[in-house]
Amino acid sequence: MTNPAPLEVILDLERAARIGLPEAVLCEPKSTAHLISILETLRDTKRRMLFTRLSQAAFDALPIRWKKALDFDVESNTAYYGTLSSAKVERNISRLPQVAIVCAGTSDSRVVKECHRTLKFSNVSATCIFDVGVAGLWRLQQRLEHIRQHKIVIVVAGMDAALPSVLGGLIQSVIIAVPTSTGYGVAAGGHSALHSMLASCAQGITVVNIDNGYGAACAALRLLGNFK
Amino acid sequence: MTNPAPLEVILDLERAARIGLPEAVLCEPKSTAHLISILETLRDTKRRMLFTRLSQAAFDALPIRWKKALDFDVESNTAYYGTLSSAKVERNISRLPQVAIVCAGTSDSRVVKECHRTLKFSNVSATCIFDVGVAGLWRLQQRLEHIRQHKIVIVVAGMDAALPSVLGGLIQSVIIAVPTSTGYGVAAGGHSALHSMLASCAQGITVVNIDNGYGAACAALRLLGNFK
Amino acid sequence: MTNPAPLEVILDLERAARIGLPEAVLCEPKSTAHLISILETLRDTKRRMLFTRLSQAAFDALPIRWKKALDFDVESNTAYYGTLSSAKVERNISRLPQVAIVCAGTSDSRVVKECHRTLKFSNVSATCIFDVGVAGLWRLQQRLEHIRQHKIVIVVAGMDAALPSVLGGLIQSVIIAVPTSTGYGVAAGGHSALHSMLASCAQGITVVNIDNGYGAACAALRLLGNFK
Amino acid sequence: MTNPAPLEVILDLERAARIGLPEAVLCEPKSTAHLISILETLRDTKRRMLFTRLSQAAFDALPIRWKKALDFDVESNTAYYGTLSSAKVERNISRLPQVAIVCAGTSDSRVVKECHRTLKFSNVSATCIFDVGVAGLWRLQQRLEHIRQHKIVIVVAGMDAALPSVLGGLIQSVIIAVPTSTGYGVAAGGHSALHSMLASCAQGITVVNIDNGYGAACAALRLLGNFK
Amino acid sequence: MTNPAPLEVILDLERAARIGLPEAVLCEPKSTAHLISILETLRDTKRRMLFTRLSQAAFDALPIRWKKALDFDVESNTAYYGTLSSAKVERNISRLPQVAIVCAGTSDSRVVKECHRTLKFSNVSATCIFDVGVAGLWRLQQRLEHIRQHKIVIVVAGMDAALPSVLGGLIQSVIIAVPTSTGYGVAAGGHSALHSMLASCAQGITVVNIDNGYGAACAALRLLGNFK
Amino acid sequence: MTNPAPLEVILDLERAARIGLPEAVLCEPKSTAHLISILETLRDTKRRMLFTRLSQAAFDALPIRWKKALDFDVESNTAYYGTLSSAKVERNISRLPQVAIVCAGTSDSRVVKECHRTLKFSNVSATCIFDVGVAGLWRLQQRLEHIRQHKIVIVVAGMDAALPSVLGGLIQSVIIAVPTSTGYGVAAGGHSALHSMLASCAQGITVVNIDNGYGAACAALRLLGNFK
Amino acid sequence: MTNPAPLEVILDLERAARIGLPEAVLCEPKSTAHLISILETLRDTKRRMLFTRLSQAAFDALPIRWKKALDFDVESNTAYYGTLSSAKVERNISRLPQVAIVCAGTSDSRVVKECHRTLKFSNVSATCIFDVGVAGLWRLQQRLEHIRQHKIVIVVAGMDAALPSVLGGLIQSVIIAVPTSTGYGVAAGGHSALHSMLASCAQGITVVNIDNGYGAACAALRLLGNFK
Amino acid sequence: MTNPAPLEVILDLERAARIGLPEAVLCEPKSTAHLISILETLRDTKRRMLFTRLSQAAFDALPIRWKKALDFDVESNTAYYGTLSSAKVERNISRLPQVAIVCAGTSDSRVVKECHRTLKFSNVSATCIFDVGVAGLWRLQQRLEHIRQHKIVIVVAGMDAALPSVLGGLIQSVIIAVPTSTGYGVAAGGHSALHSMLASCAQGITVVNIDNGYGAACAALRLLGNFK
Repeated sequence: MTNPAPLEVILDLERAARIGLPEAVLCEPKSTAHLISILETLRDTKRRMLFTRLSQAAFDALPIRWKKALDFDVESNTAYYGTLSSAKVERNISRLPQVAIVCAGTSDSRVVKECHRTLKFSNVSATCIFDVGVAGLWRLQQRLEHIRQHKIVIVVAGMDAALPSVLGGLIQSVIIAVPTSTGYGVAAGGHSALHSMLASCAQGITVVNIDNGYGAACAALRLLGNFK
Repeated sequence: MTNPAPLEVILDLERAARIGLPEAVLCEPKSTAHLISILETLRDTKRRMLFTRLSQAAFDALPIRWKKALDFDVESNTAYYGTLSSAKVERNISRLPQVAIVCAGTSDSRVVKECHRTLKFSNVSATCIFDVGVAGLWRLQQRLEHIRQHKIVIVVAGMDAALPSVLGGLIQSVIIAVPTSTGYGVAAGGHSALHSMLASCAQGITVVNIDNGYGAACAALRLLGNFK
Repeated sequence: MTNPAPLEVILDLERAARIGLPEAVLCEPKSTAHLISILETLRDTKRRMLFTRLSQAAFDALPIRWKKALDFDVESNTAYYGTLSSAKVERNISRLPQVAIVCAGTSDSRVVKECHRTLKFSNVSATCIFDVGVAGLWRLQQRLEHIRQHKIVIVVAGMDAALPSVLGGLIQSVIIAVPTSTGYGVAAGGHSALHSMLASCAQGITVVNIDNGYGAACAALRLLGNFK
Repeated sequence: MTNPAPLEVILDLERAARIGLPEAVLCEPKSTAHLISILETLRDTKRRMLFTRLSQAAFDALPIRWKKALDFDVESNTAYYGTLSSAKVERNISRLPQVAIVCAGTSDSRVVKECHRTLKFSNVSATCIFDVGVAGLWRLQQRLEHIRQHKIVIVVAGMDAALPSVLGGLIQSVIIAVPTSTGYGVAAGGHSALHSMLASCAQGITVVNIDNGYGAACAALRLLGNFK
Repeated sequence: MTNPAPLEVILDLERAARIGLPEAVLCEPKSTAHLISILETLRDTKRRMLFTRLSQAAFDALPIRWKKALDFDVESNTAYYGTLSSAKVERNISRLPQVAIVCAGTSDSRVVKECHRTLKFSNVSATCIFDVGVAGLWRLQQRLEHIRQHKIVIVVAGMDAALPSVLGGLIQSVIIAVPTSTGYGVAAGGHSALHSMLASCAQGITVVNIDNGYGAACAALRLLGNFK
Repeated sequence: MTNPAPLEVILDLERAARIGLPEAVLCEPKSTAHLISILETLRDTKRRMLFTRLSQAAFDALPIRWKKALDFDVESNTAYYGTLSSAKVERNISRLPQVAIVCAGTSDSRVVKECHRTLKFSNVSATCIFDVGVAGLWRLQQRLEHIRQHKIVIVVAGMDAALPSVLGGLIQSVIIAVPTSTGYGVAAGGHSALHSMLASCAQGITVVNIDNGYGAACAALRLLGNFK
Repeated sequence: MTNPAPLEVILDLERAARIGLPEAVLCEPKSTAHLISILETLRDTKRRMLFTRLSQAAFDALPIRWKKALDFDVESNTAYYGTLSSAKVERNISRLPQVAIVCAGTSDSRVVKECHRTLKFSNVSATCIFDVGVAGLWRLQQRLEHIRQHKIVIVVAGMDAALPSVLGGLIQSVIIAVPTSTGYGVAAGGHSALHSMLASCAQGITVVNIDNGYGAACAALRLLGNFK
Repeated sequence: MTNPAPLEVILDLERAARIGLPEAVLCEPKSTAHLISILETLRDTKRRMLFTRLSQAAFDALPIRWKKALDFDVESNTAYYGTLSSAKVERNISRLPQVAIVCAGTSDSRVVKECHRTLKFSNVSATCIFDVGVAGLWRLQQRLEHIRQHKIVIVVAGMDAALPSVLGGLIQSVIIAVPTSTGYGVAAGGHSALHSMLASCAQGITVVNIDNGYGAACAALRLLGNFK
């Protein structure tokens, strides 16, 4: 069969069983037709799915019945298909979450939220801490004891990305750094932040792709899956 | 004559005779006036032509009579002018096509289709295989025997572009790799995918420009023209 | 006092107590005089220290008494000052190490060894697995069950760096990827490998700086310190 | 066993059977100890091997018995281990080789020779044509009929790399382009040549990594293996 | 006076007298208010002016009286303010122009026209020759005698920019090369074309900024001003 | 509390007391909701604030009462919240300002104005001098005595950014250079201007980020705060 | 006279009078013959001079009489020709220097010393503070009161260059940041440090070229010259 | 004949007749064997030749008889083979040369000399003017009348390359700009200088490759050949 149409999407539905992480759909490069085809497969196979980088415009272009079927969050550009099991969501209810997501300012909150929503989709709670940029160090110092109590700290930062270097020297937690494309001039695109994090003078910091809150959450899930 | 207007386009209409490949028109940088001028030349000289990178907007801007004269495909942004000879299209009818076009996910299907449509314009069939990304290796392994039966395998991949490296170590076929601009952060623009393919640890893989499904198809046509 | 000489080095000797990681000395940009000054401080304060990126030439330039005081490894360009406590080294003796260090070929063994020696300096064993490049996928498949039994897998790869993407889809372990500067043309310097790893289609992979085996080991140590 | 030493190299010795191409050893990043270990494995398993990027200095550092066992070529920095079967070498003796290697000037002859020696190691003859740079177009035109008679033309070029674009419009042969790092200023490193070849206005040209004569030869071998 | 408003533009109106070239206004980064202020100055001082990079939108935003006062060309995004002296325009009427503007395809015609209009504004005629891309070398060869008769040849090319290298080896004329941003993938932005031209194997070619048809015309004017 | 919403912004309101510079809000990456939240905090805490990179569209999206509360300047994309104390603004009234802001052409006036408005928000006057580009050196020479009388000269320039190098050799004043993203081809984005300024052959010039008029003003404020 | 030899060097000896800064000789690209010619001019005109980037090898290549005439410092690769006036050197003797030079570790001490020696050549004292990298924040906090007492703080940092961002939020002093090329991988060359500093979230930091301790000192001298 | 050895070099000896420029040999990438082969061809065909980028080491490696046959200049790394006709050399004897080569400092004199020697090889005199960097503008102003009398001005500059922008606004001459790789940090490699020249605010400046004094001379020769 040589005809490229119709595009029946072959989802890697057993991924969760194999590596402990659910597959997610990166919506950005996909057409509305592709997204609908994926949603139909999910409905027919009774699967849940996380959608990332689903813009407001792409969401709006979906038929009304699919829009209703999705739990869409505009700031993080994520959507859930399928229900979150209320039983499991609160497994951390009696104690502090193991994961904190920390960022320097509100400009990076879209990435923080993508990370938070990815964790929540896997029933993992996370503490979000905003506005601890190192230019006003007292804000970080005030929150330090709180941050320190989390075993995993995801640090989201753009521009000079000095926050993970400072935090890295102050806390023992696992640190996963997410550079963001926030900024202008040499900062725009996030490569400055990425390179700062990779070249950090603080030890044992690992890094994911620019703006990849989803990836940082998956790295945390791998960790929690191995070391419960 | 020093006046730059009118722009009469000088097409290289004997190209097919000279190198065995038809000329194609790259529409992206051309104005509607340029495109109409080219179409008029084709009509007057009774030639066929492949148009690439013809956006929906550029197609819509053409007069209705020219829109009707084109076989336009919106996903691949290609159009045919002139008819495909039905006699020749099926010259591979009784056996498997010699060319397979393989990609990791549906995000790259626009490039797969550009490649497929270019081959079809020259009466060459191709098998399209989607969703064999290495992150779910079983999908590739399930299709491996099928892929292996094609003498030429065009591999379309973005982001980390690990697919051609894995395939290159598993099959004997000629492999032509097409990097795509799919992705964000360090992947955006396709340079990461391009560099991965060029630096592949698998041997004897050749590469074309980013998103250049057309070019990969032409490389396959050169090959089929020399080694029938 | 405004005179910049003498340079008395202020080591961050309480770092281990504060963040659970020992300070290390990056030797590359330091003069022989600097290194001797650091060694004298260590001797006087009775501290242990890990030296990284100590070239054969820089080691040779040290006075004989300091050379004797160092446990130098030429392949990884690392040295230990102070003894490893034999009691603790074997705390993993009765079971498989929790950390595996995996690389595609022997070309990257200098980075594997820097990583291995850093872990060993903190009394952590690691399994080293060489030659599982994806261009000969059977080698990886043969070792897969072994690799999978480690909770943390550090993947060292240069050139196209396809290995972490393939592994990431096959195992549940935490994956820390180390790009290397091995290769030529577009691969030289390690940026292609770095970008491939960051743009990996496999989920939840984190990355450290190019050739930074030391950093990957520290990330593993952070993890083991939090999740024993 | 967690000790990284001794490094026993696991060669992918069945590669030839699997994909029709022999494994080769990229010597540049390997120590003398690594090279000797590989040679010992080859001797013990009675295998042949191609070594690439073996510098004069690295060759000189080998023990005398291994130097004698290698057929070393200084210009291409390649060596053969094991004998070439004289019976097979001349399988093309009665007719023109199917492969031509063409370059603009003698500056790129090291890459031409790496390519030629790789082909010869697999018993494939190739015609080498030097000094057909487009700045003296008559030299190319004089050789054009000769070049055209080869089904595969490997074009090696640095600096502006205009040669494959010109050739691509004149001949029907399969064209594999190899950018070289020859030149200075914006040309140094070979990225300008690489980009010119990828962006070529001539159709159906494929490209390999900078200075990768070995890779171009492997691509030709894949092709000849499929289309005899 | 410290108030930055009003912005009275100080034009370098004596530039023509000083260096033989008229000042031009680069419109792209200027607001409508700035453009009107400049036009008022020109009207009050009875000066002529060339406007470059004046988009259709920016032109449309001008008040109707200023639109009428401008000789606007949409393809080249240039406009003339003030009349061309008919007496001088035809000083080349009885003989071939000294300047040819040559390009590979119609995609670059916007740059060709910017160049042509700049020359015309200084009463210099130029021959425009399109569609002589080296992928169809016969088209160039057919026009070669015509091109050769011009003392200055401005070559406009994007993508691989092989045309100036080929022409440079065939003609004695002064060659000024203009890279264009035409193309996609590695070609997009024009840096590949720029680097090809700078690294050209043909001798004595000089280059201007990407898409800078205006600059190439000015270079020709400097030349004609010194060597009449 | 793990819910990332609501985002209550934690402003660093004591920054002025700590480092002598007021905090400013970079609006570009912030949503309308974020901006309103910040304005509400300011109102409730009776603080003044400078907003930068507030586009016309972002300003228009604010509720009418907030638009009225802001002193918005469209060219510089800045806004003041809270009144300027008239008493202090004119502290320089009887003498020349200590700061001059100099630029080559009107294309960079948006950056000049951002700088000027930032200084004014801190009650510092500045002289703005436009159109002293080095291509018409007489314009600079005519203004040189005036420029020289300022202790701090902020030089704003795009493209080749030759102005600070020339000024740097002519005046004793402190020079702070601001590269701009004005231009096209190799100039677009401002990296050429940035690199020219950093590599300037004139001594003692310092540089801020591309288009960062705000940052240059802050550097001047630091200086005036220390050396009154 | 068209002969380029002999090269008589025209020094800008009145520079100090004109802009308050002495000329310095950048030795790196100069031959021994050039350096001797400059020294002879200085001797004949009875001038002092600062030499920068004078490597040990270049110094050793000078004739013995010139070596004796120079006050050479190997760590900073600087040399003084002519005596420092003892009367003036100590003009700051009774109070704290106005300038501090701060760096994260001893790896950057070569740049600190170039800066210190440049200031000293102009009779300006400076306090040097090493080892205050943010990965061990206590070291910075311990020194903060001392640093804060200097009106100008020159911050020298490589790799992630987080130090100026942290300092910038804690002190009111003028901050001049010098990125260094210390580090490997993404840090090598100093571009990561440069970009971090330019994109710093702390306000009013200005930056000089990579490794340019000399330039930072000159910027301080401009400042001290204007604001005594 | 498929054997790549022996490499008989095919020189483009009729180039001078065809395009008015002599061929030159770029020695950098050539082995001693290649150079000798070329010299033998020249001797046998009684041709003259210019050698460029011939390092002292490469020259020293030639046999004594060839060293004697060459007029070698160490600063410019050029050599002449064959005699300069004394009759023609002085054709400009009674008047000022038409070409000036101007540079900012002695650091770029190696490029100035390559340019001067290339012109001299074609019997064209040139005036060399050193040390007119814009940081000491008086030096340029003092020489301006002299420079202005030359119809062609080749400007050689590294680092910020401000000189051609300033000169371009002051003189009517044809200006050919040569960026140099002089400098460190962002200047190293010459890309900053190249981009400054291409983005120059002065009109009608053309540019050649970094350090390409030979190319600038050839451009001048093309010009003089057309406009005598």
